Amino acid sequence: MALNESSGGRTVSPEEITSRATQALPASRKIYVWGKRFSDVRVPMREIAVSATLVGEGTDGKPTERPNPATTVYDTSGPYTDPDVTIDLRAGLPPVRLKWIEGRGDVASYEGREVLPVDNGYSAVEHVKTERFPDASRRRPLRAKPGANVTQMHYARKGVITPEMEFIAIRENQRLESYRALAASQHRGEHFGASIPECITPEFVRDEVARGRAIIPANINHPESEPMIIGRNFLVKINANIGNSAVTSSIEEEVDKMAWATRWGADTVMDLSTGKDIHETREWILRNSPVPIGTVPIYQALEKVEGRPEELTWEIFRDTLIEQAEQGVDYFTIHAGVLLRYVPLTAKRATGIVSRGGAILAKWCLTHHKENFLYTNFREMCEIMKSYDIGFSLGDGLRPGSIADANDEAQFAELDTLGALTKVALDNDVQVMIEGPGHIPMHMIRENVTRQLEVCGEAPFYTLGPLTTDVAPGYDHITSAIGAAMIGWYGTAMLCYVTPKEHLGLPDRQDVKEGVIAYKIAAHAADLAKGHPGAQVRDDALSKARFEFRWEDQFNLSLDPDTARAYHDATLPQETAKVAHFCSMCGPNFCSMKITQDVRDYAAAHGVEASEALQVGMEEKSRDFKKSGGQLYQRV
Amino acid sequence: MALNESSGGRTVSPEEITSRATQALPASRKIYVWGKRFSDVRVPMREIAVSATLVGEGTDGKPTERPNPATTVYDTSGPYTDPDVTIDLRAGLPPVRLKWIEGRGDVASYEGREVLPVDNGYSAVEHVKTERFPDASRRRPLRAKPGANVTQMHYARKGVITPEMEFIAIRENQRLESYRALAASQHRGEHFGASIPECITPEFVRDEVARGRAIIPANINHPESEPMIIGRNFLVKINANIGNSAVTSSIEEEVDKMAWATRWGADTVMDLSTGKDIHETREWILRNSPVPIGTVPIYQALEKVEGRPEELTWEIFRDTLIEQAEQGVDYFTIHAGVLLRYVPLTAKRATGIVSRGGAILAKWCLTHHKENFLYTNFREMCEIMKSYDIGFSLGDGLRPGSIADANDEAQFAELDTLGALTKVALDNDVQVMIEGPGHIPMHMIRENVTRQLEVCGEAPFYTLGPLTTDVAPGYDHITSAIGAAMIGWYGTAMLCYVTPKEHLGLPDRQDVKEGVIAYKIAAHAADLAKGHPGAQVRDDALSKARFEFRWEDQFNLSLDPDTARAYHDATLPQETAKVAHFCSMCGPNFCSMKITQDVRDYAAAHGVEASEALQVGMEEKSRDFKKSGGQLYQRV
Repeated sequence: MALNESSGGRTVSPEEITSRATQALPASRKIYVWGKRFSDVRVPMREIAVSATLVGEGTDGKPTERPNPATTVYDTSGPYTDPDVTIDLRAGLPPVRLKWIEGRGDVASYEGREVLPVDNGYSAVEHVKTERFPDASRRRPLRAKPGANVTQMHYARKGVITPEMEFIAIRENQRLESYRALAASQHRGEHFGASIPECITPEFVRDEVARGRAIIPANINHPESEPMIIGRNFLVKINANIGNSAVTSSIEEEVDKMAWATRWGADTVMDLSTGKDIHETREWILRNSPVPIGTVPIYQALEKVEGRPEELTWEIFRDTLIEQAEQGVDYFTIHAGVLLRYVPLTAKRATGIVSRGGAILAKWCLTHHKENFLYTNFREMCEIMKSYDIGFSLGDGLRPGSIADANDEAQFAELDTLGALTKVALDNDVQVMIEGPGHIPMHMIRENVTRQLEVCGEAPFYTLGPLTTDVAPGYDHITSAIGAAMIGWYGTAMLCYVTPKEHLGLPDRQDVKEGVIAYKIAAHAADLAKGHPGAQVRDDALSKARFEFRWEDQFNLSLDPDTARAYHDATLPQETAKVAHFCSMCGPNFCSMKITQDVRDYAAAHGVEASEALQVGMEEKSRDFKKSGGQLYQRV
Repeated sequence: MALNESSGGRTVSPEEITSRATQALPASRKIYVWGKRFSDVRVPMREIAVSATLVGEGTDGKPTERPNPATTVYDTSGPYTDPDVTIDLRAGLPPVRLKWIEGRGDVASYEGREVLPVDNGYSAVEHVKTERFPDASRRRPLRAKPGANVTQMHYARKGVITPEMEFIAIRENQRLESYRALAASQHRGEHFGASIPECITPEFVRDEVARGRAIIPANINHPESEPMIIGRNFLVKINANIGNSAVTSSIEEEVDKMAWATRWGADTVMDLSTGKDIHETREWILRNSPVPIGTVPIYQALEKVEGRPEELTWEIFRDTLIEQAEQGVDYFTIHAGVLLRYVPLTAKRATGIVSRGGAILAKWCLTHHKENFLYTNFREMCEIMKSYDIGFSLGDGLRPGSIADANDEAQFAELDTLGALTKVALDNDVQVMIEGPGHIPMHMIRENVTRQLEVCGEAPFYTLGPLTTDVAPGYDHITSAIGAAMIGWYGTAMLCYVTPKEHLGLPDRQDVKEGVIAYKIAAHAADLAKGHPGAQVRDDALSKARFEFRWEDQFNLSLDPDTARAYHDATLPQETAKVAHFCSMCGPNFCSMKITQDVRDYAAAHGVEASEALQVGMEEKSRDFKKSGGQLYQRV
């Protein structure tokens, strides 16, 4: 049965979504690491089992093996991949954080705002055809008690370590767990010799949040989400945008994309829906999302005034913020830096204003000859944010939409204002990150990070790509993965993905996967370049499997085992090929890795270490080398 | 009718290949720019026509338009996309360079080496089932007259500007042609204001070749190829690897891949075939390739000794070089830097030696306890190279095969030797470039370029990726496009593509296209970052089309119009959607670009420049801004 019978999109049943989302990843099992400080902190990880290395034959003629340790990886897929949890999209996920939120004693439930037909884009007399989330009418939202501030930052600044912070410390360390397993393995081997790095501690998490260098998006009304952190001293995160539009798609497709995106590694998901059923779509997503959800509230506010930016008011916008706060949105993109005086700076641009939010607010400012109401009401917004612990994601409404407009005056003028607003948010103990571009050629990327860190007091940077060229629509996941990897290395904390459909159409689930994988690559490449402790463990494990022709392990350790296996099988489909000590590229007698093994075997067979065996040969030959070398450099 | 009836691969007929390769790219026509110095220099370019910009309505109610100049782009597709040329794969392409080669008076034809069954991997008694290239038995190869050196470098150093050099100067400038057209257009508009840069001159081409900072791969026996240059003061080039293997694929598939790769932008193609029919495959490819062809001769030499590296000899290898030289191979990968004393440096690596050539030679060196015969015979090789004008591509046989092995002692030891060999080649006026890695995390990429430029006297660098992480088999076109873009920016002259099948299987034609497009993106992003004159023209034209909702123009200007159009149509298939002033992402009332136009229209309607209109508002409002801003920064 479809959730949304009125949808023009393809029908996906909840059962189908559940069935796909709950499928185990190959050779993987969900493990949990328990907190030491809080007994109910239970951090999910994915453990990938690998087979043993064949090291030769025993005296009995049987193969002798050397076991390889399992690799644990960061797991964003939530309860979906836990076989002990029964997923029911109509019931939502278990509220893992609820006890912690209530246990702090600073929140109270209340009646909440009534959901109106206009919230879903319908008039008062229209019949809303959408299936409402079953529990929604019964839920009473939580809010800070009068005078209280319930942000993770507020706790951090008071010196408190929350369960969320311990959860995050354990979660960020999981590659270290893997690293320790590797180190502890008696047959660890000689190839992975880096020393074991320091752990990330709950205290470190707290301190980074307290100083505003990292945020924990964690609305008290989204207790289903598993705590995660965005900051440049942690693993680089990625966001996946989903959302229906006035033209296409349906609620169930969006829930499906959310579950699909987190399965492949999205750390947060932004619901950018427009058109009908915005409220309901968001409700279904939030109740079923194990990761923080972000939105751009101005999109819904605009729907409420039937797409006429000039009719927007602070009151309508504020009401929308409350609506979404009560649902549990974890961070809001707020384009408060689009000031009236900056708008003319975009008039001479190649591509003007390409941010939807930025364009809406620019039009509003011009029409009314007034300053952006998000700017003038920023303090009141802070009050809302701290009552629910919603993070600001200060939007870059004037970001460049083409290489021609990169790093221009409009862009950096807005950034300066975002810096001033960051200070206001931080003064209110409200968590804040800063959005960044966009379209930037490689040589101009670093300046974006340098200026953002300076102007915004090191608040986390959250960039869209950037795309490093405009010439490849259809491949902007690649044009932007290049920029994303670089800007992640330079210090960006979260990368907003770009799918192959960027500039062309709305991403379907395959596009979502392509975007997520491209950005997992970018984020991981950045982690490696930043020297994140333990990041290289997975590379090392996969490369070792590759070198030893453990094909199944190579697939299973990869970001996308399904595709790796399918590509291999396209050339050599037989099962035996997956245990063959060669591959399709070179054939059985022509494999460089095989030859390298022969080289090692040769050295071993001669009863000495390879280097010593060669030393003998070298001494003997060194005269020859010199002689031939000497000849070599003579002019003909 | 298939070329190769014995092939296990899918059958592709020459007619099918021709039909696909000769299809015009949308809105594109082949144009030629004629040389000024040489009357028969005729440089192909692709001109992409675009539609006009709608600027409003005339007094008669009809729309008024402002024309946009066509964009010309670099064109590697050769005669295939010239409707005036009839393509016949059995006849090969017209020998455009033959007159120039013969006109220099320093070459002579000769009988040439007899093609033996073993050249194709058959025994003397086996019947070769492959269809031979029809003309092959009649062709007499060219060779330098005794004492002559026919390399482009030799001419350059004598101060001679060859037709090839003028061809290249014009070819490298074609974006400038486009730029000039844009500048000359009376309605050029205010958005693309960079000044017109200096042209690349034939003298500059000559000087760069003379000092060894650029090479022109141009075997005198491959007159079908259109001159191109590889050097870091020119556009960044890309190479596509093709080639059958002992396990899979056939001659016709490889010819198809070659034509397909050049259609999408491959600047050179390497034929890495192994197994049967190597000679014939290469012959078909060379006779039909408009771009230079590279090979790794040790692959074929190894086939001749039935896959046993230890049986290789200099004589067998030398004979293979002559065989391929006579066919017209334009550059040879030669792993002459794998010295005996470097082999032990790889024993402790995570992934040993991953270069096939490197592994073969390492095994040979160990087995015989002798120095690499490519190293000891390097001077004799130079004699061959200069008799045919074949470029050295000094192979990095010890490149790292994993992140764990990046920038290690073995890699840089070999690089030092390649530097010494470069000097020998240059002393012989033989063109040379240097191959580079491989698997390198981002923060370690720059060191590769810095050291290469220093050690090899700025000889062109030619790198495989590098892959910036090992964790994404199935997506290594992306892991490596990141590294390729960066290393191109840092100064690499040519990027060897990586396809999605890397590490998993042999690329099919779709993989070839994916790899080429990913690398065109990387190369173009590098050109932008390097500030190559005119590189941004295509970005600007495409962004302008995008901003003005000229959908067809956006598709046609893109690197892959077919995919861009297909992705757009997947969401909005109607023809009308391609002229709609909105897109599927946001719907008709919610488009940021549309709103930006409204902003401009609003300013225009008020009879003043946008900036002036706002100035009025600003002055009025500035007190308010200050007041609200002042409040804004007060602590709650």
